Amino acid sequence: MTRGRRREHYQWNMDIVGVSGIEAEAELLAAITTFFKRVGVTSADVGIKVSSRKLLQEVLTRYGIGSDAFAPVCVVVDKIEKLPREKIEDELRELGVAEGAIEGILAATQMRTVEELEALIGPDAEAVKDLKQLFAYADAYGYRDWLVFDACVVRGLAYYTGVVFEGFDRAGELRAICGGGRYDMLLGALGGENQPMVGFGFGDAVIVELLKDKGLMPDFSRGDTQDLVFPLSESLRPAAMRVAASLRESGRTVDLVLEDKKAKWAFKQAERIGAERVILLGEKEWEAGNVRVKDLATREEVDVKIDDLK
Amino acid sequence: MTRGRRREHYQWNMDIVGVSGIEAEAELLAAITTFFKRVGVTSADVGIKVSSRKLLQEVLTRYGIGSDAFAPVCVVVDKIEKLPREKIEDELRELGVAEGAIEGILAATQMRTVEELEALIGPDAEAVKDLKQLFAYADAYGYRDWLVFDACVVRGLAYYTGVVFEGFDRAGELRAICGGGRYDMLLGALGGENQPMVGFGFGDAVIVELLKDKGLMPDFSRGDTQDLVFPLSESLRPAAMRVAASLRESGRTVDLVLEDKKAKWAFKQAERIGAERVILLGEKEWEAGNVRVKDLATREEVDVKIDDLK
Repeated sequence: MTRGRRREHYQWNMDIVGVSGIEAEAELLAAITTFFKRVGVTSADVGIKVSSRKLLQEVLTRYGIGSDAFAPVCVVVDKIEKLPREKIEDELRELGVAEGAIEGILAATQMRTVEELEALIGPDAEAVKDLKQLFAYADAYGYRDWLVFDACVVRGLAYYTGVVFEGFDRAGELRAICGGGRYDMLLGALGGENQPMVGFGFGDAVIVELLKDKGLMPDFSRGDTQDLVFPLSESLRPAAMRVAASLRESGRTVDLVLEDKKAKWAFKQAERIGAERVILLGEKEWEAGNVRVKDLATREEVDVKIDDLK
Repeated sequence: MTRGRRREHYQWNMDIVGVSGIEAEAELLAAITTFFKRVGVTSADVGIKVSSRKLLQEVLTRYGIGSDAFAPVCVVVDKIEKLPREKIEDELRELGVAEGAIEGILAATQMRTVEELEALIGPDAEAVKDLKQLFAYADAYGYRDWLVFDACVVRGLAYYTGVVFEGFDRAGELRAICGGGRYDMLLGALGGENQPMVGFGFGDAVIVELLKDKGLMPDFSRGDTQDLVFPLSESLRPAAMRVAASLRESGRTVDLVLEDKKAKWAFKQAERIGAERVILLGEKEWEAGNVRVKDLATREEVDVKIDDLK
């Protein structure tokens, strides 16, 4: 168990089934960046590394390496950022990859832009076409600044077949925040009929670390109470229950004071929980068929007929 | 595993800590009945049996039975509705309860109203005072019709000390729907300082059976999409992405058509998922800086300036 890695966690998954075009990848990345924006994370905090497994596939094909070697080569490439170059070369050699092909693989993973990649493997390579289209779509959606082409990203799972991506904190302090990609051959491998599929997993552990670091954790302690209902005397308690029940029925979120407290305490409590209004029940007002409603934002107090209270 | 009982389940719990008055019980029962009403269950479908452990405590005290016998006697009483009377008598005898006390316990559990109970053990018994107060509060909240006094309800857990309650289907086909009560001595028993506490557990298994039986299961299949965005030609796909992103930013829930489909399909899809509007992108409209917005309720179509779209 390390920071952002736990024995058990919750994970947000989204998958699009049946769409073979790169539009599906673009839509999922839109969902991820929309989520980041909504929790207050910016593209200065977080980036999403993007590549395609077709890149490596293309390089292997050019060197005449069979498709059996593809998955094991991916596992080695996945370690490029963690191990020294000689170690990577050794591991590829152990897989039976020839020296020229090792050079080719390492050259391809060192490309820093899609344009560099295009210069290396040509504009007709599917990896190049997919990634150019994806970046163009990212422009259209308005999240291009979140994406970083990174030829070393292959993701650990064997089943990915196309675009792969991985959310990371730009400060480089945390594990991957989320990750996914296209896996068009998975159903076939499991004995079913293949379907175009793209998906991602987004665990709750790393994003919480990031939100804590950035001071972006939402404050759940205030709750979502709208009305605090407070009887000024014990004899009005049943009346307060009736008022609370009626407000709840009309959809309000209501906290009813259950103990014999001073009015001062009730107002403090309303502030603490961030309520919008205090509904006060006093003997005189109740006899006149009213309750007193105090708006905590404007500080205004008005008497409202019981049946008009909403 | 039987109907409504699974190896693992989710449970909704509510507890009020620190309130010694019966107001806490009343508030929790308000939450339970509010929930039932919101999912469409009525007091004709479901009732909540209510009693107090103080009732049995009172009876035992009157017969000079020590407090050690209280928990085991509760376990026997809990079986009154499942076992024949002789079997219950035998079990109480085995606990060393004298014949007169057995009569007294069984008489008390046969009371059908709080008034009968009051006639039997007097108006000053705490159980009587608590239950009368609770029923009066239930009147004030407006959920009195849900409650049924049932002296046999003691709940299975040893730690309850006061009011206990149990939601049940009036058709008598299901297990208990929810249950709870006051447990003022639990923290002390666990080595802490006692605190007044009331709470309930409400599992997801039995209520789902009930909702299915009553045809009240919500339909989650339609989703909550508000806008379906559809480009009439592939060249407008990036424009559609821009429009979808902008609508989402303004808080709308948007489904973007990701494949090259016919307009007819898009309108059908919008109906299927229950969308409010279809946002159509056509070459002519887009060149004029517009999108076409079709309101699916009114069937009206209007052209809207791209920047005015919300």
